Amino acid sequence: MSKKRPGFNASDFFEKGHLYFLPHISIDCVIFGFHTGELKVLLLQWKDTLRWCLPGGFIYRDEHIEDAAVRILKSRTGLDNIYLQQFHTFGDPARDNGKHGVTKLLDKKSKSWLKDRFVTIGYWAIVDFSEVTPTPDEFSKECQWWDIYQVPQLILDHNAILEVALESLRRNLNDYPVGKNLLPEKFTMPDLQRVYETILSKKLDRRNFQKKMLSLGILHRLKERKQGVAHKAPFLYKFDEKKYQRALRQGLKFGV
Amino acid sequence: MSKKRPGFNASDFFEKGHLYFLPHISIDCVIFGFHTGELKVLLLQWKDTLRWCLPGGFIYRDEHIEDAAVRILKSRTGLDNIYLQQFHTFGDPARDNGKHGVTKLLDKKSKSWLKDRFVTIGYWAIVDFSEVTPTPDEFSKECQWWDIYQVPQLILDHNAILEVALESLRRNLNDYPVGKNLLPEKFTMPDLQRVYETILSKKLDRRNFQKKMLSLGILHRLKERKQGVAHKAPFLYKFDEKKYQRALRQGLKFGV
Repeated sequence: MSKKRPGFNASDFFEKGHLYFLPHISIDCVIFGFHTGELKVLLLQWKDTLRWCLPGGFIYRDEHIEDAAVRILKSRTGLDNIYLQQFHTFGDPARDNGKHGVTKLLDKKSKSWLKDRFVTIGYWAIVDFSEVTPTPDEFSKECQWWDIYQVPQLILDHNAILEVALESLRRNLNDYPVGKNLLPEKFTMPDLQRVYETILSKKLDRRNFQKKMLSLGILHRLKERKQGVAHKAPFLYKFDEKKYQRALRQGLKFGV
Repeated sequence: MSKKRPGFNASDFFEKGHLYFLPHISIDCVIFGFHTGELKVLLLQWKDTLRWCLPGGFIYRDEHIEDAAVRILKSRTGLDNIYLQQFHTFGDPARDNGKHGVTKLLDKKSKSWLKDRFVTIGYWAIVDFSEVTPTPDEFSKECQWWDIYQVPQLILDHNAILEVALESLRRNLNDYPVGKNLLPEKFTMPDLQRVYETILSKKLDRRNFQKKMLSLGILHRLKERKQGVAHKAPFLYKFDEKKYQRALRQGLKFGV
């Protein structure tokens, strides 16, 4: 569980951070935002260099890496109570090569633990971006949503990390349910299809999609239909909470 | 790419290893062995404590973590040219708690970088165990295959790491092709089904399995049938090399 941690000013952090944090290991978070047919990603902009990056940070010496990911996300963006999925650890020794342009704060220090090589553990999450208010931290000028296809050149290898996260998110659709926190409680099959189409960035066949979704056994079809639709009002569905949670833990076993 | 590295004797390694390796980060490899209906895992036994563990090791300060995984696997087991799949990084600060019983070599040192907390990056691979000759390293008494359901109590959190690797291997069957290095060049559909059944540890429906496999578009049905079968000789198949490799890179898109 997370516990109260000391605050740092920037100078302490650059000079003495290694006394509190594990050296050589960082965490980066790829936060995907979904809302009615749009997919975005949350980025921070450094105050001094104006360069954009994924929200990231470090692990206290006695802290579980999962707790660190949640804490980092909260402290750098204001987002709380988000389930983070670990997807890959990045460990090319060349991934830090461009580091010294990241922030002038780092250039000024002749020695800092932050100048060492870092292996970074990637986490992703997908949230309804209309429901969160991104908040920059003390090092950031901005914290904002970017269209997934218009992301600028990021620091270090963050563009590559984002790509791998997007692949992992898409592959995850094969293995786990999605939609619980992206859709209202009651939704139509076309609403659910739009979630998949947006994440996969392609059109899906309506009938195959419906058949596949129903075969998963995680949906209840309700007696009511969608209101305010003139002709052939579509059925409303909701997730079976128990089965959805079990599928999140055990996987959908879509394949064989 | 891997390069020539200095050798260490045990004492140097325990006292000065941190000058060569990244502190706080290790790698553990879960090597699954498949052969005609049996699934096994490769374990090492410490010389002094006789305790069993996964093959693991550390990352040189200038080394890519993927290269480290391949090097560690080769040096500790004799296995070479194996594609390793990174599956999860384990970072509970309590995962090292039982460490001091692992080897008496460590207990004897009052100070060693190896007594610190380690975050470990897990890799798995699946190989035909009839084709490899496991070879213990200087710290190990034995290096041998264990039945996946009869694994003893391992050091640290290695039993839990093995569980997560097995889940990842099974989930991988949804997303990627398997069988290329586990089957002869030409094989029957029942041969392929046995690979899946062994990994999943359950019986699969013959007709559904065949339908699913053919729908992937990675198999060629040959004109010849299996020899030496009296009645209804089954067709032989082989993998379409190009499509298999593409599916390995891009995934099978089994689901939607």
